Amino acid sequence: MRKTVKDLLVEIKDTSELIVDLAYSAILFDNEDIAEEVLELEDKIIDLLREMSVTSILAARSVEDAEAVSTILQIANASQKIGNAAGDIATLVLRGFKLPKEMVQAIICNSEETIVKAVVSEDSEIANMTLGKSKLRTRTGMKIIAIKRGFNWIFNPDKDTKILKGDVLFARGDITAVPKFFELVTGKPVEIKE
Amino acid sequence: MRKTVKDLLVEIKDTSELIVDLAYSAILFDNEDIAEEVLELEDKIIDLLREMSVTSILAARSVEDAEAVSTILQIANASQKIGNAAGDIATLVLRGFKLPKEMVQAIICNSEETIVKAVVSEDSEIANMTLGKSKLRTRTGMKIIAIKRGFNWIFNPDKDTKILKGDVLFARGDITAVPKFFELVTGKPVEIKE
Repeated sequence: MRKTVKDLLVEIKDTSELIVDLAYSAILFDNEDIAEEVLELEDKIIDLLREMSVTSILAARSVEDAEAVSTILQIANASQKIGNAAGDIATLVLRGFKLPKEMVQAIICNSEETIVKAVVSEDSEIANMTLGKSKLRTRTGMKIIAIKRGFNWIFNPDKDTKILKGDVLFARGDITAVPKFFELVTGKPVEIKE
Repeated sequence: MRKTVKDLLVEIKDTSELIVDLAYSAILFDNEDIAEEVLELEDKIIDLLREMSVTSILAARSVEDAEAVSTILQIANASQKIGNAAGDIATLVLRGFKLPKEMVQAIICNSEETIVKAVVSEDSEIANMTLGKSKLRTRTGMKIIAIKRGFNWIFNPDKDTKILKGDVLFARGDITAVPKFFELVTGKPVEIKE
């Protein structure tokens, strides 16, 4: 089924919100893994924008329609800028640009929230559970903000969202909560990178 | 006390995340009130960026410092782009650009999350309570994402954050939850705009 312009717009909104969060987290915590996801999401936004533009232009039949399309195209333009800016930040991370060590230390010590990704393994006790059932939030303090499943993304998952083997979970929370989170999701104890 | 570069960077990150959320919500729900806040936050980001640039350049004493400053200036540049793009979307709202009516209807009927602002009145039963004590989340379904207090912003408030008379609360949640939320915050029943 073709997506409607409304579906595309909501997806662009969700993607733009996520990409900004991920980009800042990648640079503050020097996380290349998250930076790469940002570049992937930047491409995704561009694809969504193209699809939204074509679909909305094709659907226009009246002057009123055309005015609405012009609004949509301007939102698309702004969304592209947001995606590009997030991509710029991610590229800094991947090219090895770094913040001063003391600053990163201060960010970590102040428990600023970080974002991490983890792949649900076969051994994970939460595979095939719903998010609610898994109690990930209460057990680890980390909140799942998005799930990547193959080429699809689930934004703002809720307690009824099922977690499947192979899902890539994106979670936000205190940096001290990360090891426990990885352990539950990957089914393996985590070695901390120095 | 002067803010450190780290404090400024974290504040820019928080402001950038909020401004993107507010901008999309303003255009999807045609909310001029929120659009105006976006323009205010855009100015705030520009002020923060200027302060961060000056502070970080002044602090540089070595080649290593200078390299870190160059990273910071590039993040500043990307943050400015994000702020501008959000401002572009808000300007659309304020200039009367609108999405097609059926689309707005579909967005509302699908219970996409909206963002609203409400001022805490003297009559409000939650004035002088902490967020936790007020139970705003469980009673209304709306989550407070930011509080504006005079010229200051509190991002990501938690259960211990106190709510004061005159605070401007920004909350995210289902559009059906909005009237109940307004009633608790303003202490007055709400008339729904047609």
